[in-house]
Amino acid sequence: MIGSSVSELRKDLVSGEWVLLARDRAKRPHQFRKRARGKPQSKSTCPFENPQKSGGGEALLWYADPAALAKDEFRNWFLQVIANKFPAVAPHTSKQCPARTTYGPYRRMDGVGYHEVIVTRPHDRSLGEMTVEEGELVMRAYRERYAALAKDPCVEYVLIFHNHGREAGASISHPHSQLIALPILPPDIKRSFRGSQRFFKKFHTCIYCKMLDAERRFRERVVHENKEFITLAPYASHVPFELRIYPQEHDSRFELLSEERLRFLTESLIEMLKRLHRVLGDPAYNFFIHTTPANMPDVEHYHWHLEILPKISVPAGLELGTGIDVSVVPPEEVPKLLRV
Amino acid sequence: MIGSSVSELRKDLVSGEWVLLARDRAKRPHQFRKRARGKPQSKSTCPFENPQKSGGGEALLWYADPAALAKDEFRNWFLQVIANKFPAVAPHTSKQCPARTTYGPYRRMDGVGYHEVIVTRPHDRSLGEMTVEEGELVMRAYRERYAALAKDPCVEYVLIFHNHGREAGASISHPHSQLIALPILPPDIKRSFRGSQRFFKKFHTCIYCKMLDAERRFRERVVHENKEFITLAPYASHVPFELRIYPQEHDSRFELLSEERLRFLTESLIEMLKRLHRVLGDPAYNFFIHTTPANMPDVEHYHWHLEILPKISVPAGLELGTGIDVSVVPPEEVPKLLRV
Repeated sequence: MIGSSVSELRKDLVSGEWVLLARDRAKRPHQFRKRARGKPQSKSTCPFENPQKSGGGEALLWYADPAALAKDEFRNWFLQVIANKFPAVAPHTSKQCPARTTYGPYRRMDGVGYHEVIVTRPHDRSLGEMTVEEGELVMRAYRERYAALAKDPCVEYVLIFHNHGREAGASISHPHSQLIALPILPPDIKRSFRGSQRFFKKFHTCIYCKMLDAERRFRERVVHENKEFITLAPYASHVPFELRIYPQEHDSRFELLSEERLRFLTESLIEMLKRLHRVLGDPAYNFFIHTTPANMPDVEHYHWHLEILPKISVPAGLELGTGIDVSVVPPEEVPKLLRV
Repeated sequence: MIGSSVSELRKDLVSGEWVLLARDRAKRPHQFRKRARGKPQSKSTCPFENPQKSGGGEALLWYADPAALAKDEFRNWFLQVIANKFPAVAPHTSKQCPARTTYGPYRRMDGVGYHEVIVTRPHDRSLGEMTVEEGELVMRAYRERYAALAKDPCVEYVLIFHNHGREAGASISHPHSQLIALPILPPDIKRSFRGSQRFFKKFHTCIYCKMLDAERRFRERVVHENKEFITLAPYASHVPFELRIYPQEHDSRFELLSEERLRFLTESLIEMLKRLHRVLGDPAYNFFIHTTPANMPDVEHYHWHLEILPKISVPAGLELGTGIDVSVVPPEEVPKLLRV
């Protein structure tokens, strides 16, 4: 059945969104390499070399360099979190949560929230080039700042994300991640949450767990596994070489990750970024974490995960006019292509 | 109220999707100019100079150059439509419409449909640089091929779209538009259609007509008007300098456009592309037409329109992880910035 026609429409099991896999347009990995990330920006003008000197404000959190001797001195910082100097949302002075108001026939609301940047010290060593020990500090900062922001009762969702390379929207090349705390539940989360809820009501089981069981049986799209995490090229991939890292066992909240599982997550993520780097020639990419919304109780139907989207193709009129993403690499080929 | 905070969340009146307007990140038009379109590709290797010689197959439709004398000779073609050589969907040999099938826990369907390319003759004269007379031929080809493809009972939706510039996904720089006929109703159309349907049930009027009334009163976001069409910078703009062209009077179907209105549409579209070109320095852009789905009867609640999305910013982890687009140019400034 599969492979019989020029292309195929595939539906995401949870969100219900369709993607289009245009098979005949497929290219070999070396043909994607030309879109690789450009040169890093100069160190001398980089605002993340010394965030405090560059007006980044006080560090909201910092971790010492694991290789340094004097671990309690800020000058040995390996990672620090600062408020985003150009925030997309910002804290309100009012004690009340922002309300939805109207403007003529429209609805609107103030962009109230938090927007933070997690900076690691080495100017041109990306997360995929770090040791697991260093990468663990990044994951730990994600967990710690997520918990801090999620406490605010006005926050509906905290997104942890990372942009690597100019084509993926990183305006500063110095490696950094971001957290944004929003006063609304984002539509992408809402859709998946609704999908998993509907499935749970019907079948009394987590849709993600069921999908992972099927993927372990199929063995077609499993790219990597360790004791705690499984990485798939998703059946309904939105872009070539898309990867998703899921906890092997049901788990609804990223932020409750134990130290042991945090290490396994770091290993999986660094391994995946390394392989993309090697096979595609340091491509631009975005990754983000989807977890149960901040002010909701633990749920049995939602399974947190991390999504990696290499930025290899450009969405055009077809994607923008339909909402259907088009990919040219069958996810079934990704495990082979990323084998090392 | 508006303008009081660093940013603002705005909801699309019809689709219900949120966008984020990050005001403090705003730039002046000249700061967007660096992202302008690159050099056109060489004429000698261009597959659209002589589509038939380049293996493009028979012309499905062609129009003579309005300036040429012998109007019935194909060698004087100004516009021709050919099947896409690398189609995202392709016709089926079977007489039956494609069915949704399962693959393990997933749903899928064959990518059955049509994918056509509309080529205009001049190698580096884009639609915005054409005369109204030439542009009318392009609109006429849209209308004619739309009608032809929409007749197929397996087709659920026909999208007419145009990619200009490499950053907007145009792999060939020679000006061309595309039509894609899909066997499913795309999610973006479904959402807006549902929104307009819901509104009509409640208020017995077209939500778009109501919105246009409000916009004509506000006068804040109206960029251009003629007898038949009004162009807005939409309240919930997804990208900087987004523009939408709507029929002034209620009209649910693009393809039923009269000759007179077709001329007014062409005038509006060319004028808008010209202004973007002048103000932003020939930016890359996508545009597409949203109209009532092919096999549905005329409806009172849906109002067709054309959306222009300049490709100035790059969606990053924030947009990809939430589904909330972030724009840095308030639509209220666009009419002034695009005034000439």
